[in-house]
Amino acid sequence: MTTPAPKQTESLQESLQQVVRILNRHKLVESLVHKQDMPKQELVETLVHRQNLAELEKKLEQLHPADIAFILEALPLPDRLTVWGLVKSTMEGDILLEVSDSVRETLLADMDREEILAAAGQLDTDELADLAPDLPQNVMSELIGSLEEEERAQLESALSYHDDQVGALMDFDMVTIRDDVTLEVVLRYLRRFNELPHHTDKLFVVDNDHRLKGVLPIKRLLVNDPDKQVAEIVAREVVFFQPDDDVGEAAQAFERYDLVSAPVVDSTHKVIGRLTVDMMVDVIREESEAEVLSLAGLKEEEDLFASVWKSAKNRWPWLAINIVTAVVVSRVIGSFEATTAQIVALAALAPIISGIGGNSGSQTATIIIRAMALGQVTAANTQRLVAKEFGIALLNGILWGTMLGLVALLIYGKLGLGLVMALSMMLNFQVAAAVGLFVPLGMHKLGRDPAFGSSVFLTFMTDGMGNLIFYGLATLLLL
Amino acid sequence: MTTPAPKQTESLQESLQQVVRILNRHKLVESLVHKQDMPKQELVETLVHRQNLAELEKKLEQLHPADIAFILEALPLPDRLTVWGLVKSTMEGDILLEVSDSVRETLLADMDREEILAAAGQLDTDELADLAPDLPQNVMSELIGSLEEEERAQLESALSYHDDQVGALMDFDMVTIRDDVTLEVVLRYLRRFNELPHHTDKLFVVDNDHRLKGVLPIKRLLVNDPDKQVAEIVAREVVFFQPDDDVGEAAQAFERYDLVSAPVVDSTHKVIGRLTVDMMVDVIREESEAEVLSLAGLKEEEDLFASVWKSAKNRWPWLAINIVTAVVVSRVIGSFEATTAQIVALAALAPIISGIGGNSGSQTATIIIRAMALGQVTAANTQRLVAKEFGIALLNGILWGTMLGLVALLIYGKLGLGLVMALSMMLNFQVAAAVGLFVPLGMHKLGRDPAFGSSVFLTFMTDGMGNLIFYGLATLLLL
Repeated sequence: MTTPAPKQTESLQESLQQVVRILNRHKLVESLVHKQDMPKQELVETLVHRQNLAELEKKLEQLHPADIAFILEALPLPDRLTVWGLVKSTMEGDILLEVSDSVRETLLADMDREEILAAAGQLDTDELADLAPDLPQNVMSELIGSLEEEERAQLESALSYHDDQVGALMDFDMVTIRDDVTLEVVLRYLRRFNELPHHTDKLFVVDNDHRLKGVLPIKRLLVNDPDKQVAEIVAREVVFFQPDDDVGEAAQAFERYDLVSAPVVDSTHKVIGRLTVDMMVDVIREESEAEVLSLAGLKEEEDLFASVWKSAKNRWPWLAINIVTAVVVSRVIGSFEATTAQIVALAALAPIISGIGGNSGSQTATIIIRAMALGQVTAANTQRLVAKEFGIALLNGILWGTMLGLVALLIYGKLGLGLVMALSMMLNFQVAAAVGLFVPLGMHKLGRDPAFGSSVFLTFMTDGMGNLIFYGLATLLLL
Repeated sequence: MTTPAPKQTESLQESLQQVVRILNRHKLVESLVHKQDMPKQELVETLVHRQNLAELEKKLEQLHPADIAFILEALPLPDRLTVWGLVKSTMEGDILLEVSDSVRETLLADMDREEILAAAGQLDTDELADLAPDLPQNVMSELIGSLEEEERAQLESALSYHDDQVGALMDFDMVTIRDDVTLEVVLRYLRRFNELPHHTDKLFVVDNDHRLKGVLPIKRLLVNDPDKQVAEIVAREVVFFQPDDDVGEAAQAFERYDLVSAPVVDSTHKVIGRLTVDMMVDVIREESEAEVLSLAGLKEEEDLFASVWKSAKNRWPWLAINIVTAVVVSRVIGSFEATTAQIVALAALAPIISGIGGNSGSQTATIIIRAMALGQVTAANTQRLVAKEFGIALLNGILWGTMLGLVALLIYGKLGLGLVMALSMMLNFQVAAAVGLFVPLGMHKLGRDPAFGSSVFLTFMTDGMGNLIFYGLATLLLL
């Protein structure tokens, strides 16, 4: 399928603005029709009304499905559904694949059974597998029933893997050849295709049992003499994957070896599918977004125009956990009420200790989490990393601790208070390093993703310990 | 150049472990030689010593430059330099391109002028441009002097663009054809190449003045009858870029339209270069890393094994800013000393208000920053987004404010305190929404990247305002 592509990237913003402009005109007309109920007037309005929708429809036809997906995501729900109703049905499947999960939900909710079946019917089995979790059960079983046997097997295979496994993302569309033919034969064979699978930068060379023997890069096919045998120029060293490999690691391999496509083989080395770079780019983007979202405790990508209620629910779990930890920290401070009553200045100074501790800890955690994600933390170098982070914490503790001790001394004119401030700062830098190091390392040991949830626990520890150290030292040394 | 590729991705971890094992053996031998200084003994040791290094050298020869780069990054400095000394000089250029800026610095510091010249001499001009900022000035001028005129012009062009512009990343290696020839002629033309440029998925179709007329996807070249004219099957709708386009937007276009390569044209529409997906993947990865690092206030990617001193300096600017804001917040609290002296409980409760405000604000900011990065925030929908965020803040304020008010009432048994707690929480949720919205929107208006620096200002505002509201209300209502 050839889809019209825009001439330039800037036009995407312009397209969005054009769509919004037509929509606004359309809504203006609608509100006029509502206000005036003369039948004649209504007729005229309806004509204008139709013109607007026709213009919008024409505009949409010129756009790439990915661009329409972008525009749908940027529109509030009523406008989104107006546009969605005008999209050509042949494009609906591709658009559903492109939009985010939350926006897809709003679009599917607007479609009836037949529309969903028609849209899904245009997709390859691997694409269908991506969509499957969001489709109503009855539509899904009807779809499966309508597939041919091979496709059904492919779909079931794709659905049997977890989201983060290669098997769930691979496609089944590929070109395989034997190595005992000439390039001329390969070229003639390719001409029998109406179209080659997207992202075909290499042909997979297999034996009689469909086992992978190597790959023939298209680049080599094109520059070599057609009389040569495939076996002469086949690349035997191949980066390949297995269906239960982790997609994140596959994406890193694509990045590292600059791959465009790579074969997926089963345990007997038979070629069963293919990974392509476009999917890996999506994986990289999604992983990085998940990390940024999770740092702010957002459960998932939010539809920009979801209801207040729905968005609030997305944000509650993290707020709830933070409130619980904040109350615990509050009780730590509360237990030193007698001390605070005597030295009120503590109340003003304590937040500095806990805040800076949190900052320093999150720096350590970020460095460690990154190194772990890249696979660079090994048994051999962990000790060295740990020593380094405690070293930095010591340096920072002495530097900033002394400085803040002096600030406290300057403001309150009490040497003891300055001393407690400096000491607490130094100790809390050590706590922050310990938490920043061992929370991610520990979560990794437990088989959990260290990027998720570290920040809550980290702040809890640096807040709790920071206050405990500060108020504790003050009680010991100043009372 | 064909480089050996690993059979599977898992082997990368294994390779690292093998290298570490050989290095450890090597270091053991070295320490033995140091301890015993019998000349005969020394000789034997040296033999073993040589064997170890030979084994390591052999291991390295089997690895892809990207894998060696990975291993170098995961090794402490002395080991890193041992390995670097054994790397084949023909691979050094590629490896320098792959490692992070901070690790590259340590490698270049270990090379003399001749070595750097040899390594750089193997690179294409676009690759050289990537390396240029890190090379010593005198090496750079010698390199430029050794280039042919065309290459020198290319290098100077690449260096004239900013890092985040397409012109700095494009390569100059591409295949252009005319549209008035048959596919047969094109196929014969391609066979005259020794090798096609990497990532060639389409040929650029140009007129006599080298102006872009369209592209011929290799897919179409392969499936169509060789007697057809290029003009018959050329794709006229092309995604192309200009050298001053933003690379982030180019990467989004690659992602959206699933591109492998795309032409870069100048203002007269002449083809001057090419972007490829492998570079765009690097852009996407780097952007997401920069975002995560900046959230923790890390200036740049850190060499895992940099000295304590160097790493500490990377972390200081953010800590310094945070300390200044923390001291300001501390003064806000300090100004209510009289109130705190009478109601000590305030000291324990205030951190809850400011902490939760910060969390809520960072959720809002994350949503807005993401939407802005995707270009989905428009003049038309900003108002709606703002209304929604304040709505969520109101809902959260009522919900969590009431709950925390009750908690305060329960702990301290004072109705007034519970009321102040609830009210402050509600108000600070509004402050958090305002800051989370308007800081990123404002930075965007000022032409700055909203992802950078928002978090510091956000915490400052929610901490400062949270305490001001809480202590202020307590002073007004409870004294």
